[in-house]
Amino acid sequence: MDTAAQRDLIPDRRERRRQSAAHRFTALGGVAALSLNALSSLAYGPELLLATLVTVGASAARYTTAVAIAVTALLIILVWSHRRAIATFPEGGGSYVIATRELGRGSSLIAAAAAVIDQVLTVAIGLAAGTAVLGSVFPLVADHPLATALIALAALTLLNLFGIAESAAVLLVPTLLYVVVIAAVVVVGLLRGEPVAEIGTPADLYDLPGVIGPWVALRAFALGSASLTGLEVVADNAAAFRAPAARRAQRTELMLGLLLAVLLLGIAKDIAALDILPRDGVTVLAQLVAAACGTGILFHAAGLVIAGTLGLAANTGFAGLPMLLSRLARDRRMPYLFALRAERPVFRYAVAGLAALAALALICARARVELLVPIYAVAVFVGFTVTQVGLVRHWVDGHGPRWRWQVLVGTIGAAATAVIAIVVFLAEFAEATWVLLFAVPALMLLFDRTEHYYREVADHLGLGTEIPVPQWDSTKKTIVVVPVATVGWLTRRALEAARRMGDEVHPIAVDVDARLTAALVERWRAWDPGLELRVLPSPCERLVEPIADYADSLTAPDTLVIVLLPRIESRRRRYRLLHNQRAPLIMSTLTGRTDTIAATITFHVD
Amino acid sequence: MDTAAQRDLIPDRRERRRQSAAHRFTALGGVAALSLNALSSLAYGPELLLATLVTVGASAARYTTAVAIAVTALLIILVWSHRRAIATFPEGGGSYVIATRELGRGSSLIAAAAAVIDQVLTVAIGLAAGTAVLGSVFPLVADHPLATALIALAALTLLNLFGIAESAAVLLVPTLLYVVVIAAVVVVGLLRGEPVAEIGTPADLYDLPGVIGPWVALRAFALGSASLTGLEVVADNAAAFRAPAARRAQRTELMLGLLLAVLLLGIAKDIAALDILPRDGVTVLAQLVAAACGTGILFHAAGLVIAGTLGLAANTGFAGLPMLLSRLARDRRMPYLFALRAERPVFRYAVAGLAALAALALICARARVELLVPIYAVAVFVGFTVTQVGLVRHWVDGHGPRWRWQVLVGTIGAAATAVIAIVVFLAEFAEATWVLLFAVPALMLLFDRTEHYYREVADHLGLGTEIPVPQWDSTKKTIVVVPVATVGWLTRRALEAARRMGDEVHPIAVDVDARLTAALVERWRAWDPGLELRVLPSPCERLVEPIADYADSLTAPDTLVIVLLPRIESRRRRYRLLHNQRAPLIMSTLTGRTDTIAATITFHVD
Repeated sequence: MDTAAQRDLIPDRRERRRQSAAHRFTALGGVAALSLNALSSLAYGPELLLATLVTVGASAARYTTAVAIAVTALLIILVWSHRRAIATFPEGGGSYVIATRELGRGSSLIAAAAAVIDQVLTVAIGLAAGTAVLGSVFPLVADHPLATALIALAALTLLNLFGIAESAAVLLVPTLLYVVVIAAVVVVGLLRGEPVAEIGTPADLYDLPGVIGPWVALRAFALGSASLTGLEVVADNAAAFRAPAARRAQRTELMLGLLLAVLLLGIAKDIAALDILPRDGVTVLAQLVAAACGTGILFHAAGLVIAGTLGLAANTGFAGLPMLLSRLARDRRMPYLFALRAERPVFRYAVAGLAALAALALICARARVELLVPIYAVAVFVGFTVTQVGLVRHWVDGHGPRWRWQVLVGTIGAAATAVIAIVVFLAEFAEATWVLLFAVPALMLLFDRTEHYYREVADHLGLGTEIPVPQWDSTKKTIVVVPVATVGWLTRRALEAARRMGDEVHPIAVDVDARLTAALVERWRAWDPGLELRVLPSPCERLVEPIADYADSLTAPDTLVIVLLPRIESRRRRYRLLHNQRAPLIMSTLTGRTDTIAATITFHVD
Repeated sequence: MDTAAQRDLIPDRRERRRQSAAHRFTALGGVAALSLNALSSLAYGPELLLATLVTVGASAARYTTAVAIAVTALLIILVWSHRRAIATFPEGGGSYVIATRELGRGSSLIAAAAAVIDQVLTVAIGLAAGTAVLGSVFPLVADHPLATALIALAALTLLNLFGIAESAAVLLVPTLLYVVVIAAVVVVGLLRGEPVAEIGTPADLYDLPGVIGPWVALRAFALGSASLTGLEVVADNAAAFRAPAARRAQRTELMLGLLLAVLLLGIAKDIAALDILPRDGVTVLAQLVAAACGTGILFHAAGLVIAGTLGLAANTGFAGLPMLLSRLARDRRMPYLFALRAERPVFRYAVAGLAALAALALICARARVELLVPIYAVAVFVGFTVTQVGLVRHWVDGHGPRWRWQVLVGTIGAAATAVIAIVVFLAEFAEATWVLLFAVPALMLLFDRTEHYYREVADHLGLGTEIPVPQWDSTKKTIVVVPVATVGWLTRRALEAARRMGDEVHPIAVDVDARLTAALVERWRAWDPGLELRVLPSPCERLVEPIADYADSLTAPDTLVIVLLPRIESRRRRYRLLHNQRAPLIMSTLTGRTDTIAATITFHVD
């Protein structure tokens, strides 16, 4: 996840803060700001692991700890390779940047598609998982999971559209609270916990011997690895740390890895020790909470903390996608506008687009975490694979110290993550991951077509070719057309400016309303500014066409035509609607149809 | 209702047709095109009359014919006064125009508010009444009246947004069909009809002697007069007839009046003869249909014809409101943009606004006709009153031939319609018409504030005052700032144009991305167009602010600053999103903050 800007979501404030080193991360600040995504994976990863195991019978739950240890082994490799990635690409940027630098165009497009899906599902899953936890605690929510998730999404979107400042300091408290709650639940559960039977209803399980074959073990391992999603965020944002940035980011990655490993193993141990099984209507994590502290006030408080943290994790997508779009835009793979993510309207487009996609995902999956996570896991593990393959390529090309050893570990890691991506993709194909078969190629095509089109345009513009220098000593004539509706200060200013812009000034009036036109013509005659007012007939009461036609009629090889539109802008916002509506209409027709230069002169009124 | 343009709803086609006299109305064409609104009132007017009578007991239904005769007497006066209105105001325009010409500002604003409410409720009632008739025939619809009405509204809105051509010829068939169906039902019902008991359920009526006092009689008369709404449409659109326009329009008004009188009296007679009483779930008109032709296939076919005609009547609002807004805009009482209703985007704003308001009305009234009609009737009868008072004022001022006689009849008519408006307002105040207490003043305030603001702006602009003629022999300097991103044909064209527009050309580059800026600077140096490229720092990666700041820094009393933005426009629509996004951002900031002239030069690519 690209969440460098997680600290502060208003672009201008965020950017202003970035100036001062004081607002870059320390190693601990990095944990606070960048670990939410990974830590929140604990709310669904272990549950998926357990749910996969018990498909062959309830007693297969006894393998939970063993599989969790395998996941932890993978975690160690991933932490190692991400620390290497930080050292090699200290400017951050994640799998997309690494693929673009080290691998081919295809890998780069795949990584980009995976990263976009990653951001969208970060939002959707954060909200769906938060809703599931909330539903475990408050039955009312359990009855309306989709509605709850969509309301939360709407709230989050509005906060992002109209500005919240979320600094590392602000995130420190919920992150700490979350870690403390999970750790306390694990420890208390191990010491004196007892499963609580009266929440949820037991899931319908096969009464089988519970012996797992290699396929089930592999699937449990692959789906359990969903606990590791979010681990990439620190490396993605390596540039957001204080100097020495790489060193600090590596330390953050290590701390995050340790935290994740301890909590993951603790949860697995708890599940095994307390004989927790999946239940309908209550998540495994909520069962652990209930086992540790009953179903009283503490249960509700812990549920709220976990759900709130998942909501904050969802919010990281809102900082991440604009960043990712900006990178894609700079490579001309998305509209160039998105490169200007510091401009507020641009940031808002990205936020609105993300909200729409996340809503679509939530609606299609009816806010069910178990449908969303496999898709997300595949996208994240494709990213992991690309990152590691990119590193291996880098080491092979670079022949640095100990490169053989690095290539060996990197290859093992890449193979493991690739296998996980494939296993999850195949195992959940019928239920969920088939979507990727359409979404990934569609996104790749979008990026490819955009890039291709921009290249075409660059050819048209002659970029990179020999362009003759501009000819100054032209004999061309410049005509400025000034549409006039009244005689007043604005008209006077416009005519004066027009005279300074061109050789000839043509004031014109469009005869939309005969009565008004007659009055204008009379007033013009009385005023007598030394220019003839041309009245353009408008048989269909249209304003725009006659102006464009007139400008067109003047256009000739030796003539530059400028249409100068006088417009009024009120300083009072509520009156804006009363002006400014004609100018855009005229401008868009003019620039769409003609080679005219379209200009506006603004008169500010209070 | 202002529905001159009912013939053809696409603005450009409509306007093109208006050119040819062949597409103006003959007297009969006028009946086809402009009578739907009035004729459709028969679907709810007699029902309200009957429903009011039987509030004092079922046997009071025997007064139906008597009250209908009183309504017909009023109809005669209204037809007479509208024929007079056509002769006096042959350019049409309805009560708003008459009030503006003949009466004071207050009456004019009231007439405008009433006319807007009239148009909105024309749409809402057409759909609600259509749904009610459909619900009488198809029980499925009866279970979901609001949903049905809203779906129909959505369909109608889309048709209007994206263009249907509804010509007088097209309307002739449904109008004729509707008249034939109603006439056949009346005649067959009188000759050999029998009430059908198995549709709907009998309404819960008081078992009282059924003697009506003056208040109930007056209320029944007032609510029954809802049958006359829509009568004003012909006079409103008097200008849409072929020459001799006034004569033809008067003939249409007479034909419409006769048709309405005959059908109204026929329906009333039928109700009395067949002992029809209000029933739940089936309208009075549907009961008449069932009585005449049973509940078989003919019943369903007639229901469809009536419901479809009501839908077409609803559609007249979509032609009427843009016309009305255009009139208000020319008087500066609505944003001036609406005067340009022939421009497609403007037409669409009006359609979308109307659809939103009609949806609001339908939702608030849960699509119940009996709640919507009283509000509508008050608005229409306020319009009738204003029209007649305006005529009386005109005659009193004019002292034409037989003016005393005209003033007498006009005053009686005005008094009658005013009484009806007041009676309906008071009788249905608690249920429905209280809304007008807020809606009318709110609309009047909107018109008043808009007018006031435009007057303020006119003062600012010095309209109507002595404006010195423009000074040509200025010593001012003109600087053209050209933001540059690349070196190519577009840049070259922009620089050449800039040189012809001003004395100095300042090419600038905003340093959003250091790598790109460095490449641009190098390329610029190699190109060497004879102008220095100024690089503006952008510490926050913003594009717009630095440009605006630079333009600001140049602004001085003796300097005219022009910012000329090069932009690209693709002829292929799907690529539009890839360009054009930066220019509006920059333009809006420039024109909002500075007195700079903002200009764009467009490079068209295929």
